[in-house]
Amino acid sequence: MRNFTSVHDVKSIKDLVKEGIKLKKNPLKYKSLGQDKTLVLLFFNPSLRTRLSTQKAALNLGMNVIVMNMTEGWNLEFEDGVTMNTDKAEHIKEAAKVISQYADIIGIRTFPSLTDKKKDYADFILNKFIEHSEVPIVSLESAIRHPLQSLADLVTMKELGKVKKPKVVLSWAPHPRALPQAVSNSFAEWVLNAGMDLTITHPKGYELSKAFTKGATIEYDQEKAFKGADFVYTKNWSSFKKYGKIASTDKNWMITKAKMDLTNNGKFMHCLPVRRNVVVAGDVLDSKYAAVINQANNRTYAAQAVLKNILESL
Amino acid sequence: MRNFTSVHDVKSIKDLVKEGIKLKKNPLKYKSLGQDKTLVLLFFNPSLRTRLSTQKAALNLGMNVIVMNMTEGWNLEFEDGVTMNTDKAEHIKEAAKVISQYADIIGIRTFPSLTDKKKDYADFILNKFIEHSEVPIVSLESAIRHPLQSLADLVTMKELGKVKKPKVVLSWAPHPRALPQAVSNSFAEWVLNAGMDLTITHPKGYELSKAFTKGATIEYDQEKAFKGADFVYTKNWSSFKKYGKIASTDKNWMITKAKMDLTNNGKFMHCLPVRRNVVVAGDVLDSKYAAVINQANNRTYAAQAVLKNILESL
Amino acid sequence: MRNFTSVHDVKSIKDLVKEGIKLKKNPLKYKSLGQDKTLVLLFFNPSLRTRLSTQKAALNLGMNVIVMNMTEGWNLEFEDGVTMNTDKAEHIKEAAKVISQYADIIGIRTFPSLTDKKKDYADFILNKFIEHSEVPIVSLESAIRHPLQSLADLVTMKELGKVKKPKVVLSWAPHPRALPQAVSNSFAEWVLNAGMDLTITHPKGYELSKAFTKGATIEYDQEKAFKGADFVYTKNWSSFKKYGKIASTDKNWMITKAKMDLTNNGKFMHCLPVRRNVVVAGDVLDSKYAAVINQANNRTYAAQAVLKNILESL
Repeated sequence: MRNFTSVHDVKSIKDLVKEGIKLKKNPLKYKSLGQDKTLVLLFFNPSLRTRLSTQKAALNLGMNVIVMNMTEGWNLEFEDGVTMNTDKAEHIKEAAKVISQYADIIGIRTFPSLTDKKKDYADFILNKFIEHSEVPIVSLESAIRHPLQSLADLVTMKELGKVKKPKVVLSWAPHPRALPQAVSNSFAEWVLNAGMDLTITHPKGYELSKAFTKGATIEYDQEKAFKGADFVYTKNWSSFKKYGKIASTDKNWMITKAKMDLTNNGKFMHCLPVRRNVVVAGDVLDSKYAAVINQANNRTYAAQAVLKNILESL
Repeated sequence: MRNFTSVHDVKSIKDLVKEGIKLKKNPLKYKSLGQDKTLVLLFFNPSLRTRLSTQKAALNLGMNVIVMNMTEGWNLEFEDGVTMNTDKAEHIKEAAKVISQYADIIGIRTFPSLTDKKKDYADFILNKFIEHSEVPIVSLESAIRHPLQSLADLVTMKELGKVKKPKVVLSWAPHPRALPQAVSNSFAEWVLNAGMDLTITHPKGYELSKAFTKGATIEYDQEKAFKGADFVYTKNWSSFKKYGKIASTDKNWMITKAKMDLTNNGKFMHCLPVRRNVVVAGDVLDSKYAAVINQANNRTYAAQAVLKNILESL
Repeated sequence: MRNFTSVHDVKSIKDLVKEGIKLKKNPLKYKSLGQDKTLVLLFFNPSLRTRLSTQKAALNLGMNVIVMNMTEGWNLEFEDGVTMNTDKAEHIKEAAKVISQYADIIGIRTFPSLTDKKKDYADFILNKFIEHSEVPIVSLESAIRHPLQSLADLVTMKELGKVKKPKVVLSWAPHPRALPQAVSNSFAEWVLNAGMDLTITHPKGYELSKAFTKGATIEYDQEKAFKGADFVYTKNWSSFKKYGKIASTDKNWMITKAKMDLTNNGKFMHCLPVRRNVVVAGDVLDSKYAAVINQANNRTYAAQAVLKNILESL
């Protein structure tokens, strides 16, 4: 693997998931692999799980880690050919090449604008880094995908799954703010590419981009969708069509215990952070349904599987 | 030791102080003890000494350290049962469990509100972390205590003490801002639990909570208190009674060389940062009386003694 | 070497440059030299290259690194004898001594005020740290010098130079903001002390302090200056005379390909970050003329040569 930005960078999803599960059993097995290699993590946006788990994963592989919030450096210009006389002091052409001098692998978190659909869906900033970097790039969540999260989710489903062909449901849920589609896009893409059945349920107006959901069943009746589900992956997202807007705030879409009872003793999944009693009733998170801590735990091994794969190809 | 949040978590103060002194002589002796263990340090508030010394202590023990300012993540909700539709994106129930997935020990700095006495004195935030964490918690200063500082202070008094039963004085001093009672509470609690004599001196209205000072002599005449003192521990604090308010700004309470001359060639102690010529005259800090740099130095070995103790119990 | 704040701290420039070149060929050769030694990096100002390259250099030497943005601690007072009743909570006298307890070497970045010429040119803050620190201090760019950058620049010129006595030109270039003179001062000082020929070109009113440029040729005609140049070092700076002011914003001083064509197939150098199409035409940076990425790369080995030198003297 060169870069890790989506499921399309992965040769075999099955093998990568297996690798994650193996690393969880023996996290320090490859501690010499990353020796004297440096991972630089760049954050344009807040992060808790990604920040900690990716550091932990790199440490498990014996790597050095340097973390930098992009507010600690210079404002970057990403457009080509401009006259840089505004507040942006450094061009991505230099910045990406420069950071490559100090890093063996670069991780980047960059959220969408939610206003410029074209640029967001071109994954503009992430791809500018890839274009100008001289070392592999790992997405720590981009404008449209969160592949380390999705890989951790597949590891979690592999661990907790009771049937060979589980029914996977991705459900929209209400939220007071307009959020990216990244986690949902990415989850759908990974599940479908792994050959699993996926039902997506949301109010009308929240249809995700077909580029990510082709092959999924769209079901506008949430309760119908939940019936017999083995995994209920919940996430709020803003409208793709009316880009970045809140199309509905229907509180009836909150996940409740009654809804989880409709499932096949299914697991409640969420990437976190999650707003209790808005996205999901608190008692669901406190119940046996919840798999959210498992998911968070598996973030380490997902990141470790990816870093290991890249380190082996250096 | 499981958690380290107060003197009450310590089996033997004497042994822990001794451990600190021994570690100072040979800081790298237990460098293999912390190998492949990760300390995550979480800061809700500013820190210089604690930030650096705790990292140094962990490195001396061979641990990995991950530092996170809480502004780098998501605003946390600590109340149970609320509908999370405000600016708080993540509940402590999830956050503490999640961070536990990546840490072997978690350190937390969280200052008091100075407005909600009940919550502050319940050490609300620290205890919420303890309630939901799956790994040991070390206080890096909480709403009401600063136990790593107090332990370093006892190590310093052990090192510099010339008599078996020193006279220890805790003196209030003026300050332009309303400050927590944490350092003073904690110092009193440790000194008294260690069986030492403690005199506390302050203007009327600055009485500390009796829960921390039971057994101490309260002396409202500062000069009288200083007479024959072996250690003068100075600190400003805001009123406990009129909670979080400044009850007096009497500049006559500033520590001066003339006052130190009343002591038994005593040592001037302060946790730092300290405001020169407000809390204490600059010439005291520049004189042979001052033990503040020794105290700062001993922060490393206090933290190391605590981390060692916890690591041994993992 | 005790401290590293200017070329005057260097015994032999030639040997230090050679050391940088040797370390580049074998960066991990001295990995045991820094074992159990701690480098504390303190940032009062933004940093990308210095932040990352100095960490990388220290890791290559096996050191522990602790990074701290000064906003994470307490506001520092640098004036002696003042009554500290403003927003400054800690005095440099304590702060520098305290940090020395946890560090074997301290690195500091502190930019000039650009308003108080006297203090800036006394390198007031850096020298206060040196005065009160108990361990060696490395400048990560001070009010008036950027010696790690200058050393990297000399390493770069040594690597890319084709003649024994190259013609080195330092050219002012336009910029929308008033910038420090530090990089230019430092470059001039190092080049001249290394015995190289230096021509400085800038609009009238941008004369640098003679303390740094004695021995250089001043040429107000930029094109004339460029003729036959082997290295064109470009940088904006604000006026030294009308201190910190923008004396000219003449766009004709931007570096273009046509100007570079006047050189002896010279190298375009800049410390970065650089504003494209303001300081220099984008096509120069994208051409064979540009040496800016080499310079950035050599920052690691310059820092490593300095740290190695200091570690050997501890």
